[in-house]
Amino acid sequence: MFASAIIANKRDSQSLSREEIEFMIDGFVSEAVPDYQMSAWAMAVLCRGMNKREIADLTECMLNSGIRLQRASERPRVDKHSTGGLGDKTSLILTPLLACYDLDVPMLSGRGLGITGGTLDKLEALDGYRCDLNAAEIDQQLKTIGCVITGTTPEITPADRKLYSLRDVTGTVPSIALITASIMSKKLAESLDALVLDVKFGSGAFMRSREDAENLAESLVDAGTRMHVPTQAILSDMNQPLGRMVGNACEVNESLDVLRGHGPADTRELTLQLCVPLLVATGKFTSNEDALASLIKMLDSGAALRRFQQMVEHQSGKFVDKLPLSDESIFESPVSGRLTQFDGQRIGQAVIELGGGRRKLSDQVDHQVGLEMLVRLGDSVSCGQPLIRIFARSTATRTAAEQLLQSALTIEK
Amino acid sequence: MFASAIIANKRDSQSLSREEIEFMIDGFVSEAVPDYQMSAWAMAVLCRGMNKREIADLTECMLNSGIRLQRASERPRVDKHSTGGLGDKTSLILTPLLACYDLDVPMLSGRGLGITGGTLDKLEALDGYRCDLNAAEIDQQLKTIGCVITGTTPEITPADRKLYSLRDVTGTVPSIALITASIMSKKLAESLDALVLDVKFGSGAFMRSREDAENLAESLVDAGTRMHVPTQAILSDMNQPLGRMVGNACEVNESLDVLRGHGPADTRELTLQLCVPLLVATGKFTSNEDALASLIKMLDSGAALRRFQQMVEHQSGKFVDKLPLSDESIFESPVSGRLTQFDGQRIGQAVIELGGGRRKLSDQVDHQVGLEMLVRLGDSVSCGQPLIRIFARSTATRTAAEQLLQSALTIEK
Repeated sequence: MFASAIIANKRDSQSLSREEIEFMIDGFVSEAVPDYQMSAWAMAVLCRGMNKREIADLTECMLNSGIRLQRASERPRVDKHSTGGLGDKTSLILTPLLACYDLDVPMLSGRGLGITGGTLDKLEALDGYRCDLNAAEIDQQLKTIGCVITGTTPEITPADRKLYSLRDVTGTVPSIALITASIMSKKLAESLDALVLDVKFGSGAFMRSREDAENLAESLVDAGTRMHVPTQAILSDMNQPLGRMVGNACEVNESLDVLRGHGPADTRELTLQLCVPLLVATGKFTSNEDALASLIKMLDSGAALRRFQQMVEHQSGKFVDKLPLSDESIFESPVSGRLTQFDGQRIGQAVIELGGGRRKLSDQVDHQVGLEMLVRLGDSVSCGQPLIRIFARSTATRTAAEQLLQSALTIEK
Repeated sequence: MFASAIIANKRDSQSLSREEIEFMIDGFVSEAVPDYQMSAWAMAVLCRGMNKREIADLTECMLNSGIRLQRASERPRVDKHSTGGLGDKTSLILTPLLACYDLDVPMLSGRGLGITGGTLDKLEALDGYRCDLNAAEIDQQLKTIGCVITGTTPEITPADRKLYSLRDVTGTVPSIALITASIMSKKLAESLDALVLDVKFGSGAFMRSREDAENLAESLVDAGTRMHVPTQAILSDMNQPLGRMVGNACEVNESLDVLRGHGPADTRELTLQLCVPLLVATGKFTSNEDALASLIKMLDSGAALRRFQQMVEHQSGKFVDKLPLSDESIFESPVSGRLTQFDGQRIGQAVIELGGGRRKLSDQVDHQVGLEMLVRLGDSVSCGQPLIRIFARSTATRTAAEQLLQSALTIEK
């Protein structure tokens, strides 16, 4: 078998055999297949596509490049993955909430890059919070409290880590096949009994159109199902930030509000919606309605908040009721009219300008900065009305953020 | 400007600006753009295509990566390029023939790889023939005898050499845009006044279908014309070998036959057809008919043969009337019927098995082996009739070649 022939087969729109896909992935990890062949192959995969069987094989080959987490207990194991969006803090609520149902939630998460934030960055706003647990520590924590949110360990899907770095610099990120294999190989390494996917579309998401999101959702669900993990996807609207807060510490504060039974309705609702199929798939409830009714009670009882505090403290973090934020100021509407559009890219960019996000992976994140949305799509606003609260570290970053916000909201007369 | 953004633009089917193409080619040569980005870009170009303006810009950027040959004299400069086919020895006849018309023919040629032979390999069957002339030696020889057939010098289109090596191992050879830029940048570095292209189609050619050959011809002619070099293309049938001989020394012998006014009609006719447009484009004749009539006389006069001898001797080769060949044997027809098809791939492969071609560029070529076709498409053959004469070095290679020849000819009852 030759890498060049496998590349040519995909270039000619042929479907690749399991052995051919394995040859490429294993060869790439062992460096028998050099970067320049892998990047040409990735571009051929992007341009010509892969069928569902190929995607499942690719997912499994990438999964097999590393270890899988051991089952820590007899409890069913579940997790959620989101394709990322502005203000998406559901993981912080969902993880401890599910653990209250005698489920293990081994959430391996990532950092923010570009306009969408990262769950690990948000949790690190809590002083001392460790995101570098090893497999044994993850195991032990699951046994004790049933939930963990930490970074992917180096032994998990090394093929994905290596391929993602290459895709990032070779224009080969937006491929349904490669995205599916990247997401699903990491999630399947968690040895799950059920998985739910939050696939977002809109101006603040990776997939701008609902159709693209549907295609990705279908591919992700199919790969999970083929790998015998019950997988469901929920499509969610990301045409405006989820909740009011976009940033790190401010999103933790908002999550704590939801865990107290308060907080913005959209955040609370999406979180519960994502929990429902996992409770049903693991046999905790027989109907969605029963699951939802129970989840509302559980959340309002404060049990999930206590579980969250346990998780933070177990990962060496200092739990507080509310994190401090940087100095605030108000961005006012320059005109009167109706709010018809958020430009998610510009809002995300404004958070990066404030120091709350990353341009490149080595950037440091300022946890105390961010934005609070004071209006929602469809609201009528008057000239001079507060639109956004800005938490900024300096005048310079505040000014840079304000400039982006000027054109981030469309207000029609 | 970033390579990753340029790759993404082509991936998204955008046309690239001159500056973007220059950034990729110059960066690749200077190693600012690494191989893994260049191969992803090449695959994006292959999958998404390039428009004519982009192809001309790519050709010119590759041309500009190296030197151009100096004009050696006031004489018009012409050349021919063939896309390669089985038994194609027209260069050996055309080059000295055109030089008889007070034209300079600075033919920079290549070696054989895969099923098609290389002009340089054929000429090296003549003892001592040098294919490594430098620019000054080419210049001097053109001044003296008006023709040269030698290898491309290292200073000419280094971008093409580097890119071709990468394309060869990354499945990115069969792209009209990349093929055009590769061929035309090398030919335009010869500083020509007119160029003719022999674009072959059929079972023994790189382009199997006439339609693909037409598309390539159109692209090549367009790039030449945009670079202000009058360029014409002739499509020629490669569904059976050109002439009777396929190999190195045996093709030189057949070329000498044609230069003596004899030899196979197809070889003689194609060579003359390729010369005609060059004589008209350079103003030597005003009509194709006059040019053709003159060429027939010139060839039959022996003037081109003498010029060939001068060229060989000027390049340190030992001219002989006929080169010796390896031991011969006959491959007979196993059945009676009509010959309806040659499988050019298998015939070319049989020559490689004999040692007359290369699997990889570092392979040595045995000049004295080869095949002589004793039948043509459409011939009626009887069981036991000689089909092919085999010139082989050993019983082992003869047997290997015979095995391929078993299925290389289709004889229908």
